[in-house]
Amino acid sequence: MIDNLIEKIEKLQNPTVVGLDPRLHFIPDYIKKEAYDKYAKTPKAAASIFLEFNKAIIDHIYDLVPAIKPQVAMYEQFGAEGIQAYIDTIKYAKSKGLIIIGDVKRGDITSTAEAYADGHIGRVDIDGEKHEIYMEDSITLNPYLGYDSIEPYMDHCKNYNRGLFILVKTSNPNSGEIQDLEVNGEKIYEIVGKLVDKWGKSLIGKRGYSSIGAVVGATHPAQAEELRSIMPNTYFLVPGYGAQGATAKDLKGYFNKDGLGAIINSSRGIIAAHKKEEYRNRFSEKEFALAAREAVIAMKKDLQQIL
Amino acid sequence: MIDNLIEKIEKLQNPTVVGLDPRLHFIPDYIKKEAYDKYAKTPKAAASIFLEFNKAIIDHIYDLVPAIKPQVAMYEQFGAEGIQAYIDTIKYAKSKGLIIIGDVKRGDITSTAEAYADGHIGRVDIDGEKHEIYMEDSITLNPYLGYDSIEPYMDHCKNYNRGLFILVKTSNPNSGEIQDLEVNGEKIYEIVGKLVDKWGKSLIGKRGYSSIGAVVGATHPAQAEELRSIMPNTYFLVPGYGAQGATAKDLKGYFNKDGLGAIINSSRGIIAAHKKEEYRNRFSEKEFALAAREAVIAMKKDLQQIL
Repeated sequence: MIDNLIEKIEKLQNPTVVGLDPRLHFIPDYIKKEAYDKYAKTPKAAASIFLEFNKAIIDHIYDLVPAIKPQVAMYEQFGAEGIQAYIDTIKYAKSKGLIIIGDVKRGDITSTAEAYADGHIGRVDIDGEKHEIYMEDSITLNPYLGYDSIEPYMDHCKNYNRGLFILVKTSNPNSGEIQDLEVNGEKIYEIVGKLVDKWGKSLIGKRGYSSIGAVVGATHPAQAEELRSIMPNTYFLVPGYGAQGATAKDLKGYFNKDGLGAIINSSRGIIAAHKKEEYRNRFSEKEFALAAREAVIAMKKDLQQIL
Repeated sequence: MIDNLIEKIEKLQNPTVVGLDPRLHFIPDYIKKEAYDKYAKTPKAAASIFLEFNKAIIDHIYDLVPAIKPQVAMYEQFGAEGIQAYIDTIKYAKSKGLIIIGDVKRGDITSTAEAYADGHIGRVDIDGEKHEIYMEDSITLNPYLGYDSIEPYMDHCKNYNRGLFILVKTSNPNSGEIQDLEVNGEKIYEIVGKLVDKWGKSLIGKRGYSSIGAVVGATHPAQAEELRSIMPNTYFLVPGYGAQGATAKDLKGYFNKDGLGAIINSSRGIIAAHKKEEYRNRFSEKEFALAAREAVIAMKKDLQQIL
């Protein structure tokens, strides 16, 4: 997985992943009206709105970014129809050549972890017939349960060319409550970082990076620099750029000297760009996806300052 | 939530929750054949098999146990149709008066956590129209991201009479990798236990227990006893009885002196009882749900030794 991602990042000269976390309040009214007329204000309508919105965004960014990161919670909240919109979004994005990082943050053990692994990055086996269900190229996982909750995914990563990004240091204000606790002079996030580095050793690709990556929030540049040095082969998935306050100059330490090692996520900053002052005057509501494209271009420029 | 759970536990004299984690390999062939004939070996077939299996189990246990705990991974792996079977299982169980603990182990922040909270234990708002989607009474959560990942659920717990069980010390062999690390003489699971206790203070019910509970694995009796003493108002959800090796005598320390404070989960030990030596000879394949009922009665007897 990681070699494909790096290849796309280099080809596009852009280490950006667009978070597809749609929310009804920033989706243009004309899209919503059509769905409500057809399905009333139901989960089916919400799902159909999300899919139409996502397709337009994808159409306008697929030639500029290597990957998208749909946040499953936004879809899951609407039940089966929401999940179908999540899957249909992934299918559509894959048809445009995008790499998919499913932001699912699952964390469970034994047969439960196997079920998540089969569904998301492997195949489910229905009495001998295999089906691909979610088709993410990579998913995020939570490490609190230890290696039992990672191991069931490892074979799928090998066999199906998939990857993982494991939470190490998250971007939120309370992330330190557990992650910054100190054990014999080492923070929990450092210990988890070293575990992720160790777990990833067997999946290092031809560019020296592992398909087992780490989530390291953009709001913690000092900690990221530290992590960068203790886990040189680990790719960082970095949330928190833009809406959560981080800018490009905070992110230099997330990259290695080869200019690789991190992919920066922006969600609202791109997909809700049409609601922002700077784009609202230049683009009409119907041009929301053009505004998203402009925001991607601006972010690329911003990141290129540090690369 | 917790008052309802305690009331049912006392009425039935049974602190058991049945884990509804169906897997195709232990579901009787006659159920599978019917679905495969109708839908071929598709996710739709798997979903319909799970629902029929679950309904039969529920019909045979709802008068004996207070609650069920469906494991969402088993359903989620089959995509939208799987999720629909999860929801339909919950609906059916609720119609029989069972309390639902959704084993989802979600853990995320801000609008993402809100989406999970709205969908699972609250209402989703579709431009002013509110819908209840998953309808669990309580769900499990992962604490690695800190209070940001818990707080969005708290209002729903209050407003909709719902609850949470937060992972503290899990039952799996590698659980110690992070959870047993020591910070100034205190283990991470103790620190998390104290946090859960603190977070739950505002939701203590009339029996002195909080609707914010903790997951404490049955395979760690010594640690559970310690946790019991530092978090007396916290209800424990205890996985690992039966298939994972724990027996009733290991579980005494999970309960308080009032005989309350813990609800013990068994999944395979009950729903796959018909595959076990001791039941296989007494029940035909078609009587799988009767075998499950017998296993519930046996577990109740086992637990009553210590209560």
